[in-house]
Amino acid sequence: MSRERVNHYCPLCGSPTELLERFGIERPVCTTCGHIVFFAPAVAVLALIVQNDHVLLVQRANDPKKGLWVTPAGFMEWYEDPVVAIRREVLEETNLDVRVDRLIDVFHTPDDGGLADVVIAYAASVIGGELQAADDAQAAAWFTRGSLPELAFLPTQRVLARWVAGEL
Amino acid sequence: MSRERVNHYCPLCGSPTELLERFGIERPVCTTCGHIVFFAPAVAVLALIVQNDHVLLVQRANDPKKGLWVTPAGFMEWYEDPVVAIRREVLEETNLDVRVDRLIDVFHTPDDGGLADVVIAYAASVIGGELQAADDAQAAAWFTRGSLPELAFLPTQRVLARWVAGEL
Repeated sequence: MSRERVNHYCPLCGSPTELLERFGIERPVCTTCGHIVFFAPAVAVLALIVQNDHVLLVQRANDPKKGLWVTPAGFMEWYEDPVVAIRREVLEETNLDVRVDRLIDVFHTPDDGGLADVVIAYAASVIGGELQAADDAQAAAWFTRGSLPELAFLPTQRVLARWVAGEL
Repeated sequence: MSRERVNHYCPLCGSPTELLERFGIERPVCTTCGHIVFFAPAVAVLALIVQNDHVLLVQRANDPKKGLWVTPAGFMEWYEDPVVAIRREVLEETNLDVRVDRLIDVFHTPDDGGLADVVIAYAASVIGGELQAADDAQAAAWFTRGSLPELAFLPTQRVLARWVAGEL
């Protein structure tokens, strides 16, 4: 995925589309059946997971930002509850079962090199499992406020800055 | 838009797609170029706008739920900051300029008859403009806690229930 959105052919009938103004902006419109393509934002979820004054981070196994560290995070599917999505992502990346405690914030960070348009950040707590990195994560570990590794992506950086400042 | 997602033809090359398991679930995959279609959630934003113990509501001009009342709300474009999106929607529907004060909550309400998958709710305050309904709104008015009209959609109902209870 990238920040560009293209849709040269109609998803319903396969005919070429053309860019026409519809509902305020230019959108791909099918030249045969008139179907209008509405692009939706790519939404990611992340979890700030703290235990005994340590935060759980994972090391990215893939580009962008391969090798840097982030909170467990990932894209939500279109049909998912974002709370279910973050529990799934944490389990996939760390093998830990978490409970979502509360919503922290919603971020819009189109220019930080990530692939998400919108990031929903939750605070969560571990309720089961044994830590083991997998999926998008090549490592997973607990860090103190004073020992944070190099972080990727603004939502992780902003949430951790607030945690370091004692606001979370 | 509906809760179903279909993409019979590749948006990049126009060839037919087939449903194949990719990244955990079945997704449309192009039979010619291999492009994978990732559907993203339709994201709406809403604003709880309170002034002198009255809340601003708009009466829906269109189906679904035509004639019922909701907080000002609408879909965000994929490239928009949700905070910018809600200011735009409030202006379109009420002719009022608002400042976003804080995030209230994020809702996932796929089954309430609305068209959004995810709804981001903000508290906002009027900073300019003269109230006049337009766009999706056939009327706009201020209501007290004791005089609320019939409300459409769960996010509006939940936010207003919390306002009535004095929690917002």
